[in-house]
Formats: sequence, C-alpha cells, structure tokens
Amino acid sequence: MTPNPTLEPSLESWVPIPDGSDFPVQNLPFGVFSNTDGTRCGIAIGDAIVDLAVTHERGLLDGLGLPVDVFAASTLNRYFALGNPTWQRVRTRLSHLLTDDTAGLADVADSALVTRADVSMHLPVAVGDFVDFYSSIHHATNVGRMFRPDDEPLLPNWRQLPVAYHGRASTISVSGTALRRPDGQLPRPDGPVFGPTEKLDFELEMAFVTGPANDGKPIPVEIAENTIFGLALLNDWSARDVQAWEYRPLGPFNAKSFATSMAPWIVQLEALAHARVPLSDQEPTPLPHLATPNKGGFDIALSVDLNGTRVSDSNFRHMYWSMAQQLAHLTSNGTAINPGDVYGSGTISGPTPDSLGCLLEITHNGAEPITLADGSQRSFLLDGDEVLIRGHSGDSGAPRIGFGEVRTTIRP
Amino acid sequence: MTPNPTLEPSLESWVPIPDGSDFPVQNLPFGVFSNTDGTRCGIAIGDAIVDLAVTHERGLLDGLGLPVDVFAASTLNRYFALGNPTWQRVRTRLSHLLTDDTAGLADVADSALVTRADVSMHLPVAVGDFVDFYSSIHHATNVGRMFRPDDEPLLPNWRQLPVAYHGRASTISVSGTALRRPDGQLPRPDGPVFGPTEKLDFELEMAFVTGPANDGKPIPVEIAENTIFGLALLNDWSARDVQAWEYRPLGPFNAKSFATSMAPWIVQLEALAHARVPLSDQEPTPLPHLATPNKGGFDIALSVDLNGTRVSDSNFRHMYWSMAQQLAHLTSNGTAINPGDVYGSGTISGPTPDSLGCLLEITHNGAEPITLADGSQRSFLLDGDEVLIRGHSGDSGAPRIGFGEVRTTIRP
Repeated sequence: MTPNPTLEPSLESWVPIPDGSDFPVQNLPFGVFSNTDGTRCGIAIGDAIVDLAVTHERGLLDGLGLPVDVFAASTLNRYFALGNPTWQRVRTRLSHLLTDDTAGLADVADSALVTRADVSMHLPVAVGDFVDFYSSIHHATNVGRMFRPDDEPLLPNWRQLPVAYHGRASTISVSGTALRRPDGQLPRPDGPVFGPTEKLDFELEMAFVTGPANDGKPIPVEIAENTIFGLALLNDWSARDVQAWEYRPLGPFNAKSFATSMAPWIVQLEALAHARVPLSDQEPTPLPHLATPNKGGFDIALSVDLNGTRVSDSNFRHMYWSMAQQLAHLTSNGTAINPGDVYGSGTISGPTPDSLGCLLEITHNGAEPITLADGSQRSFLLDGDEVLIRGHSGDSGAPRIGFGEVRTTIRP
Repeated sequence: MTPNPTLEPSLESWVPIPDGSDFPVQNLPFGVFSNTDGTRCGIAIGDAIVDLAVTHERGLLDGLGLPVDVFAASTLNRYFALGNPTWQRVRTRLSHLLTDDTAGLADVADSALVTRADVSMHLPVAVGDFVDFYSSIHHATNVGRMFRPDDEPLLPNWRQLPVAYHGRASTISVSGTALRRPDGQLPRPDGPVFGPTEKLDFELEMAFVTGPANDGKPIPVEIAENTIFGLALLNDWSARDVQAWEYRPLGPFNAKSFATSMAPWIVQLEALAHARVPLSDQEPTPLPHLATPNKGGFDIALSVDLNGTRVSDSNFRHMYWSMAQQLAHLTSNGTAINPGDVYGSGTISGPTPDSLGCLLEITHNGAEPITLADGSQRSFLLDGDEVLIRGHSGDSGAPRIGFGEVRTTIRP
C-alpha cells in the first residue's frame, strides 16, 4: 500500500475536532450543502464544513487543474468526472490547508468555514443510473431460505457473478428526508388487495459512487477501483409484502422504487486505506474477468438503531463480492457508466444473529418480533419509527473515518 | 373523442410530402437533430425537418408560453416538462404554419427547413429513468413456457399488475448506432464461460415518454395519459443465454443493460387519435387503482425486417395493459417520474406465429431456425446482421402516422 501522508494518525487540524467525531482531518468526506448564500460543495471537518466554492474562489485550490466553478454546484458530478489523480491532488491540498494554519485557509475561515448545524445537506450527486447488488452471502442465503423454501437458498449463479438489478434513480434522497409509507399490491389468499404496505423494511447498505465515464468500455477488475470515488451509507427501503408478490420473473420493482436514502457525505476510498481487509475466499474461483488478487474489502463497522434501540451491528467486510468485481461485471458487456452513478452493496448481513441487515432477516419475515427499549415490539416498521444507520472504520488505533448517518422517520 | 382539426385527412402542407411518407402534416413528430449549425429540436414533415429553434427565434411560436431557448437544445426534456396544454397549443400552431403558406414559416423556409437526409439525428431525450414493462400476454406466455416449462406460463401476478423492471438509462441510443455484440457469462453444463453472447436477440417494442414531474404523487389511471407526451419505436436488445443464467432472483441485468435502441422521432399522442382501439378485456378485473373505462390501446402496425426479410408483423394493439395503467401502477407507491423518462412496452407479440416480437419466440429459443431471403438461416442474430423496426397507424383511410425506424447493424 502506498504510504498516505493524509492518513497519518498524528495529523491535527487547526479546526477543533470534538472527541469521537466522524470527521477528523484524516477523513475529508465530500458533500453538498446550502444556506442563505446558496448551494455549494464542501468537505466535513469536525462540526464544520469547508466551503469548497469559496476556498477555490480564493485561489487556495489553484494549480490542481480544477475548472473554475466545479464546486459552486449543486452536485459533485463534475468533480467526480475529473478522475482519480485530481481527487488525490485535491485531498492532499485540503489536508495541507486544514493542518497548516499558515497555508491560507485559516485566514479566510470567516467565509470558507460554516457550521454544519447551520446548513441543509443535499443529495451529493445527480444519479444517472442506480444499481443495487446482492453481494452479502449471509443475506442472500437467509432471503433465499424464506422466499424459496423448497430450493437451494443460493441459486447457482450467485457464486459466479455479483447478482444485481437496476433500481430507481429518481427516488434516491438524502438522509433526513421523511419516508411516506408506500401503497402497493399486498398478497392475500383470495387475491391481492391495494393498500399501505404492512411489511415496510430497511436495508443496511453501503453505496459506492463512480467518477469518469467509461464510454462503454469494459473496466478490467484490476483497475476498477480507480473509477470509484468513494463510499456512503445507504438505506434501500423495501416493502416485503409487495416484493414477495411482484418479484417473479423480472425482479423487485414497486417494492423498492418508492425510496432509497443516502448519507450526505461520500468518503473517498483514499481515506480508507487503513481499513482494507481481504474478503473471504471465493469458491468456486471466479472466471478470469472477475478474478483479482486484490480481494478488496473494507473493515467498516455498521449499525442500525430503531427508535434508539440497536437492532444490527454489521460490517462492510461481510461482502462476498468486492466493488471492483461488481464494477467489472457490470461493465463487462459494454454498459456505459457515468460520473455520479450510485451502486448499492445489497443488504449487508453478517454470520451472526446480531449482524443481520434488515427486519426480514432479524424477525424471520415477521414471525419473531423484536422488542425495543420502550417495550414495544416490531415485526416490521410502524409509522413514526425512526431508523438510523451509522458507520465508521478505525477501531484499532487508526484514525476514525466516519460516514455520518442516514436518519429517516416513517410517515403514514 | 374531441374533434382534432390537426388530424383532418384533407389537410395539405405547402411542404411536399412524398407518397407513403411517415410524416404527413397530420403527424408532426418531435426529434433532435444536428448539422454544422449545431443541435436543435425539430419536427419531421415529409423529407424535411422544421427547425423549431429558428421558427421560435423568428417569433412564429410567440404567445404559446414557450421559454426562449426551449428548442435550442440537445434534448426535448424542457419542452416535455411544459405539459399537455402547451403541447396541444404548439401542435395546433405548427399545423397552421405548415398548411398556410402565408402564415410566416414559408417565408423563412430557407433557414427554418432542413433536409432530413442532410442532418444527424440524436436521442431525443436525456433519460432519467428507463422502465421496461412486460405487457404483451402472448409474449409473456410464450417466454414463460420456455423459461419455466414446469410452471404455469403466466405467473399469478401477471394479470393483476403490469410487471416491469428498471432498465439501464445510460445505454439507450438512437437508431443508426451500431451494436457491439456483448460479452457475458454463458451457461454450460459444467459451469459458465465468459464470451460473446451466442443468443443475441431483438425485442420489438414501443416506448412512451413522459412530461411533467409528479413530485412523487401517485398519478390516477383516469388522467395518466395527460402526462404522456408520445410514442416512439424501441428495440430492447437481449442476450438470451446471459438472461437465462442471470435472471433469478432479481431479474435481467447484463442480458439487457448493454444497449437499447430508440427511434429519433416521438409521435405525440394527439396525432394518434384516429388509431385508438379498446384493448382486450382484462380478466380478472383490475383492482380499482388500475381499473379504467378507457382501455387505451392504439392500432399501430409494427414490423421487423432482418437483412431485408420480414420476420414479424405485429401491432401495438396486442398489449394487455395500457400505458395509463402502467403509469398508474408505477407511481402508485409514490415513485417520482420526470420529463424525458422512457417506458418500454415489453416485447409486443401477437397471437399468431407471424406476429412474434423476438427471435426467442420466433425460433423457439433457437430450436427452429428461420430462413432469410438469401437462403441463410438464423436462430439468433449474427455479426453483420441488420435489424429494422418500423411502425405506422392509418391503414383504414385515416392519415398515415408513421414512426420512422429503428435500424441497427450488429458488429462483432
């Protein structure tokens, strides 16, 4: 691994970082925010945000090859299109600006730094295509058992390719956006009825976001990570009753299309160098176009709280397929990808009962309700419930690289 | 039906219309074209195109509530966002300008009219989300028999809701774009191999395109057509070997995502008033949110030629679910739709052997190859093959409303 000076645990910023903050100077995640001055791109640092539009305007990002208005924008798409060498140069510069209070940023902190609590966060990208994978073997096995009890839980294709489907791009929204319980066709013994879903569920996921377009050229697995800017928390809402009824033979549609919630902060892969871990062995060995010595996993602790009660402690390292393999598979047929495209991991379940990533698994499709701290029970989500997803790397001495949160309240 | 003066068979344009043209003055389909003067929106008339940017600039579309640069654009998205009353006013004005040579357009024909043969056509919309339905009962039954021989061919949900999946928006391209044969995982008795698909297939479809965003509000089936601007020909390419291997349980992905071809011309629903026909009875009666007295079908003759040999004569009237029902279903859960979104019908097969909409059905998954005019046989498409989809309404005395073509050559 290339030594990465921006990750040095000893680095300190002149911006105060509260204890346990998700956003020390080693993180520098990208997002889009607005206040009365408009909408701009920024990076999180402690309880503040660096306004990148102002920083760039003041000349502090000169010489990095950045277009003039790239951060005076309501999405990060144009920045992501610039590609990996630029992303690294900008990260290095930002790390310098935030650790050396003589480098210029501290002098303009009045205009270039804003308090996070004072702004609204927005979806950081305009999503062209949204793909949702299905790459946790524990999740796929558990769901297979429930949906196809008479079959092998894992279908024969599952270990040969990262199974995925295209999701709805238009309904991805940022953390804090309330979720209206969707209507749908619900199966009944004497035919379906139409009404509010009775099996509303969360799905604990991570999303990656891509940079430069591939112009329809397959991306080799060995270099696929170069195209990935970074990672964000994702909650892929699901209506399990609708899903069970509609999903054959073309997959989930209305059961998923009503909403997907994404964290406002995208953590650059570069910030996660310390969190790299090998994924589990793949058996059988993938075909050559998916085979890679870099079994690129990340040790990112993930949690779900339901009305303040912890209901899942999972980890992104439980993936079977890596992001590089997912992207290589997706583009292996010549599919065009674009800056700002979003790719969900699929529900991330671990091997233990406390690490399951959705209520479908946790409650065995509602048969075994869980009890919350207030004594109430849940098979699936009720109106008024709040679901909170969080994640961070860095338990073992490395800097804590946090992902912020995806927080959503269910409305009737 | 409201009498529609723009459809009068007796209307004649001062622009010459060749016999049998797809584009008489009663049609007026919208598209996007470019030449050395740039990229603009236009309508087809005979062998010409009316440059709508120039027409608007000259003041000939004044008083219709159009933004200044709405047609000086590389997509029709902004125009579609204006909504149905505007679309109708513009159509009426264009009909007037093209039938009355004293109305102003004839005076500026030198700059406002271009020859179709001299320009390049482009994909007419920037596609936010692409949905592909599966709404021909003949197609779904035939495919069900082949893919699930031990099951009922139609799954229980099929007659209760318009089954659909999300497709790949980034790989929709305009007619004339060559198709590179995609690689993929092909099933073999002792495990999959990776290579060029051996079962490349076309799918004869129509697409509809929507206008104003619904802001996540369900669109009632009774008024859903108001949101639809019009219809275009679509070819939803499929790799059948990849599809059979990958599609369980989340539906088709790499088997479809490599390419979808769309005609350059979108025919406004208004131009198809004469072609309206009731669809077949639906049994069981749809649930209330999908039930509508307007069984909105359209008599549009559709054909597929493979290297000049006719291989399918189908018709858009063979749909089981109407576009209004499709859109009501899709939005019934609060899904957001946007201007320029594209919705495929699914393969349109009729009840007879000569009206099947894809080679999978025509050749019984390759088991019964067809013979082309040059004596060669086809189970699926070969490199160098050319697939041509055409369509038109108006065989019975009404004006011919043609859809142009989707023409594609297969490259290795």
